[in-house]
Formats: sequence, C-alpha cells, structure tokens
Amino acid sequence: MPKLSSRVLRMQASPIRKFAPLADDAKSKGKKIYYLNIGQPDIHTPEIFYKAISEFRDHVLKYSESQGIPELISSFIKYYKKWGIELNKNEIIITNGGSEAVLFALMAITDYGDNVLIPEPFYTNYNGFSQAAGINIKPFLTYAKQGFHLPSEEEIEKHVDDRTKAILLSNPGNPTGVVYSKEELNRIANIAKKHDLYVISDEVYREFVYDGLEYTSFMHLKDMNNRVILVDSISKRYSACGARIGLVASKNHELMENILKLCQSRLCVPIIEQIGAAKLVDTPDEYFIEIKKEYQRRRDVVYSALKEMPGVICEKPTGAFYMIAKLPVKSAEDFVEWLLTDYSMDNETVMLAPAEGFYATQGLGKDEVRISYCLNTEDLKKAMNIIKNGLLEYRKLKE
Amino acid sequence: MPKLSSRVLRMQASPIRKFAPLADDAKSKGKKIYYLNIGQPDIHTPEIFYKAISEFRDHVLKYSESQGIPELISSFIKYYKKWGIELNKNEIIITNGGSEAVLFALMAITDYGDNVLIPEPFYTNYNGFSQAAGINIKPFLTYAKQGFHLPSEEEIEKHVDDRTKAILLSNPGNPTGVVYSKEELNRIANIAKKHDLYVISDEVYREFVYDGLEYTSFMHLKDMNNRVILVDSISKRYSACGARIGLVASKNHELMENILKLCQSRLCVPIIEQIGAAKLVDTPDEYFIEIKKEYQRRRDVVYSALKEMPGVICEKPTGAFYMIAKLPVKSAEDFVEWLLTDYSMDNETVMLAPAEGFYATQGLGKDEVRISYCLNTEDLKKAMNIIKNGLLEYRKLKE
Repeated sequence: MPKLSSRVLRMQASPIRKFAPLADDAKSKGKKIYYLNIGQPDIHTPEIFYKAISEFRDHVLKYSESQGIPELISSFIKYYKKWGIELNKNEIIITNGGSEAVLFALMAITDYGDNVLIPEPFYTNYNGFSQAAGINIKPFLTYAKQGFHLPSEEEIEKHVDDRTKAILLSNPGNPTGVVYSKEELNRIANIAKKHDLYVISDEVYREFVYDGLEYTSFMHLKDMNNRVILVDSISKRYSACGARIGLVASKNHELMENILKLCQSRLCVPIIEQIGAAKLVDTPDEYFIEIKKEYQRRRDVVYSALKEMPGVICEKPTGAFYMIAKLPVKSAEDFVEWLLTDYSMDNETVMLAPAEGFYATQGLGKDEVRISYCLNTEDLKKAMNIIKNGLLEYRKLKE
Repeated sequence: MPKLSSRVLRMQASPIRKFAPLADDAKSKGKKIYYLNIGQPDIHTPEIFYKAISEFRDHVLKYSESQGIPELISSFIKYYKKWGIELNKNEIIITNGGSEAVLFALMAITDYGDNVLIPEPFYTNYNGFSQAAGINIKPFLTYAKQGFHLPSEEEIEKHVDDRTKAILLSNPGNPTGVVYSKEELNRIANIAKKHDLYVISDEVYREFVYDGLEYTSFMHLKDMNNRVILVDSISKRYSACGARIGLVASKNHELMENILKLCQSRLCVPIIEQIGAAKLVDTPDEYFIEIKKEYQRRRDVVYSALKEMPGVICEKPTGAFYMIAKLPVKSAEDFVEWLLTDYSMDNETVMLAPAEGFYATQGLGKDEVRISYCLNTEDLKKAMNIIKNGLLEYRKLKE
C-alpha cells in the first residue's frame, strides 16, 4: 500500500471530537451524557433563518458567487456598522465557516515553512489549519493565574523571526475565555508594525463578553488597515454551527483579491445556508441581551462549582463560553476517557475536552481540561456534580 | 504592507470565472449572455431535495458528524450498489463538494514538493488544489485528434519520478468529454501498481455517458482497493451545484481515517444541504434517462455547429457536457473577452472559457476554448450562431 503523507500522519485527531466513539458507546448502553467538550450552544437558532430557507425555491440550485451572495455580504456590512466597523462589499468574502476563513488567510500570507505566532493555549483546530498550510505555529505562553492575558511586548517579540508572517489570536479567546483590552490589542499592533506582520483576528465570540467589559475589535485600530485580517462566523452568535457560514474581511484589497482566487478554486459556499444567514442581521437586540445574561449565569455556575472542588485551579473568564481548569490528576486525558467508559452517577456522565491538544508546546496542558458551558444551568449543575464526584472516585482508584 | 504568499500570487484566477465582471458589465448594459463558460446545468433540481429541506426544522442547527450525516452516507451506499460498487459506511466521507474531496485526497497522500500525474488538458481547479497542497502537477498530453484518449503505458510512465504519488483523472473527462475504456483504466492501474501510486478518480460525470458506451469506474477494478480514491459530487448528477455536497471514498481504511482528521479540523459540512441530498438517491431512473437524451441532443447541436465553422477543429466527445474546440484565432482569451465587450448579435452574446487555463504546459491551449453545453438546444443554437458570426467578424477586424 502506498504511504500516506507525513503532514496528515502528524496531525492529531481533534481533542474535542476524538472521544466521540466512546461517548456514542456509553450512550448506546443507556448512559446520559452531558457534553461539555464542544462549543455547541443549546440556544435556539433564530426562526427567521429557517423561514428564509423553507421559502427558498429555485428551479435550479446553481453555483453562487465565489465571494458569497450579495445579500449576505450586505447583511454583514449592516451588522458591522452596529459595531462601529465600516466595511465595503469587496472587503468581505464568505467562507465555509470560520475554519475556511482561517485556512485561506494563512494560505494567502504564508509559504511552506513560514510561521505564525499564537498565544497558547489556543483553539486546537489552528493546528489542523497550520498543518494543512504547511506552516509552523510558534506559541507564546499565557497563564491561568493571569487570566490568560498577553505577556509584555518584549516577551512576545522574542518569538518573532524572519519566517514569521502573522500573529493569530481569538478574542474573546477559545479555550481561555479571555477578553483582550484595547491596550493589549495595541501591544500586538505595535509588534505587527515593527516587524511587518499581519494580524489574523478571530472574533467569532464578539457578542459573548461579560461583566460589563468593553469590547475592542482589531478592526477598530487606526493605521492597521493593511495588516488586519478579520475572521468571523455566525456559528456561535446565532447558534447556527451546522450552517458553516463564516467570513474573512480586510481593508487590504490586494489580499482580498488573492483570497478570492482560493475561493474560486472551491467555487462557492453552499447557497441555502447563505440565504438563511442573510436574514440573521435582523435578529432583535434582545436576543443577544438574553443570551449574554444566560451565558454569564452559566459561567458563574461552572466557575463556582470548580472553585469548590479540592485541588482544581481555574480563573474566572470574561468572554466566550469556555474555561480551562487544571485538575488534580496526572493525565486529564485518562480522566476524560474514564468518565465515559467507567463512571456514572445515576447512569449519567460527562464528556470533557482534554486541554493538551490546545497547546503546541510539548508537555503542557496534560492535567487541564477545557470546559464548554453551552448547556442550561440545571444540566450544568448536574454535570459539575458528576465531575466533582468523579474526580474523588478517580483519585481514589488511580493516584 | 506585508507581502502575500508566493503560492497565492502564483495562482491564476479561474479561467471559468475570471471574465465574470465583464459579463456582469455587459448584462448591466442590457446585453443577453449565453453562458457556455461554466458547467452550470439548467436542469431542474429534483423536488424531493427542496421538500426535505423545507420540512427540516431543528431548534438548534448543530454541528453534524465530521464525516457526514449517517442518512446521507447510507444513501450513497445505496446509490453505488446500483452501479455495482460495494462500499461500507466507513469507506465514504462527505465533503464540501468534489473540490474539497480532491484537496483532502491530495493532502492525505502528498507532502510539499511531491507531484501527481494528470492527463492534459484537465479540470482547471486541479491547479488550485495542487497549489493549496503545495505540490506540482506533472501533465501528460492527450490530443483532440485522438478524442483525448490516454497515451500508451510507456508514454505515461515516462513522467513518473520518485516524488510522484498519484495519477489524478476525471472520467468522464472535464474539459474534454472523453470516456475512458476499461482497457485504459487497466493501463493506469498497471502503472499505479508498478510504481506504487494512488489513483484519484474524479467520477462526478458518471451519469453523462452517450452513444450507448459502457462506463467503468476505477472502483470496479480488482486488486486496486488500497490505491483507488474515488471523488464524487451531486452537483452535476442532480443539478445541485449550489449545494456543495461531494464525497471521497476508498477501501483503504488507513487513508480514510487520516482524511477524517482533515475533516475534523473544519468540523463538518453544512447540514441542511446534507438533509436534502440524502433524499436524492430516490430520484427515479427516468430522470437520468431523460437528462442523458437531452445532453446528447445538446452535444449534437454544438458539435454539428462547430463542424460547420471554417477553421474550427473539434472531435465529438462521448461524455460529460464539455468539449474543447480549437479556434482559428491567435488568442482565444482575447476572442472571449471581445465577445463580451465588443460584440453582440441582436443585443445577445456568448461567454466561453479560454482553454489555456486547462493546460499546465506553457503555451498549450492558447487558441482553444472549453464549451459547456448546459443550455437548452434552442439557446445553444442561438449561442453557436453568435460564435460563428463573431468569429468571422473578429477575424476580419483582428487578423
């Protein structure tokens, strides 16, 4: 049998999804599972999305424009205006989720062997996109005890070399829940200008900022127009993960023209989801006010439960719907597996994401998990209780 | 402004789509355009597709399985059975169109700097996928006068070197309309076995085979199980290009497990189109019988019109819905542009695809166009008349 590529053999299975077969197995044996491993919101997708789709009927389901259908692009222009971000129609390209947006941004600015700086821990799929693009991730570490905020300019700068093309970050942060301050954004901007780098800003959790904190987008910074590449998605904002509608935006027109070439080679994004997504801009503001309150409650439930578990270390995050918790175990991966295969309380258990896959530096995150708080508070309480008791039992058995 | 990657700067704009702005411009001035540039069928998408979609309503539009939803995979298993191809559920992965299937297949078997052999002319987007994967295309030439059939085993073998990982071909062929015989498939299989290569077989036009010819899939060949990677799509078969539902299939399980890692990094394919596509397997056989007859009529209209144009060279294709025609002009690209910007008959004109972008060898295809016969015969007759008269006028003016 001919060999497979080393790029694909090197790729890790997704830490978010790799235990799915174990979960399926537990489910088939009648166990109920609380899924805290994946950022799959339980919030209802706005009805206007489905309405537009069920009304859509074209005799022929044709290819659409490679850059996305005009009405969807217009709807995003309107959406960004609300956030004080002015974009024109040739500054937005619709992609297959935020995933393709990151991949195409990387491909447009890096060649094989180049690298990008990323604060660590980071969204695990950045690994996959980097491997697909044939580039390296140069991580710079952020710490739980500092709420995963950025290190100093000097510290970050140490990691820049002559193959560095960009700094990639998510804000609010997945998996950390950090929300960067304007000052932190300026810190990144300074480094980018000094070393002639792009900034890829993944802002898919823009709406999920708590405790009255102010949110700053990289698109708000002056004189960064040619450097900032915005990545966005409707997945979390409108609870429409399965639609796979994202976008890449930039004021750098040469960049956008070249990303369009990548888009042309895959022809277009599925049209039906685009039709539905174009209506989402009319979602009333109350929807977000409610959601924000709800997620803040959820965060508080998870955080206070973690705080009461002996040996668990965790800081209170201010954005997105994730947090990283350090557990009093040697291998979080083994614990996650054990919860699915060996443990239950009243025939219920929990699925978590081991955090090791969110680090690029070998050896980090082995005793950490990412917790996604996308379930209602009742379920979250039950899930946290299972984790608490599971931890006690596991430590008795294993350590 | 920081530099863009050389991989993206090297990429050509799609020859199928690059003149779209000129066409839009002509349209906005009131010209009617017959689009013969793109393989966008005008056949109605089966009603069962829309019905399933309009009935679908889930409170939360969740991520689906990275490999595709089970009902869609099952529907393809049923579909392939009709063609005498036995596949299991772990041998099929749903992709964002055939495009992603080709890209992921390439990524899974090649590393940066490797190459794949492709009979030339070939589907232009293979260029984009290869550039995205960081590999080289090694073309081997096929000729209009031989109906674009494959050269001898010895001739093809000359192009194999120690970085060659696969032979990639579309059958029936885009842009040539060739349908390979079983003997030709065996020729490729022999080379693959001798040199330990994969075969990526793009069979999205399987249903479009004319003149009573028999169709053989690479999946029908014995002892090629571990080498054959099938690429497929519903786009052309069910006139559902805008759905972007494709698949990659193989009996090589290690390969499929590794392609799944690539799929996990982009999470999943849009779910609504998957729901609709899963019903398409129940499309009655008459649908295809009718379509086949219709396309055969269209091919005959285009072919006989071309045969009557002085100086035009073209062989009668037997599959897909494209043909390559050599025109009596120096630059087909200039002619294509001129038809959009300077020419019309009764305020109507035609858009063609210059064929140069379907060749990898510099200098080939400059006087050729790809004609897609996806319009009804009445429109095709008008379009061919415009081309005939346009050619006469263009040659008077320019040559």
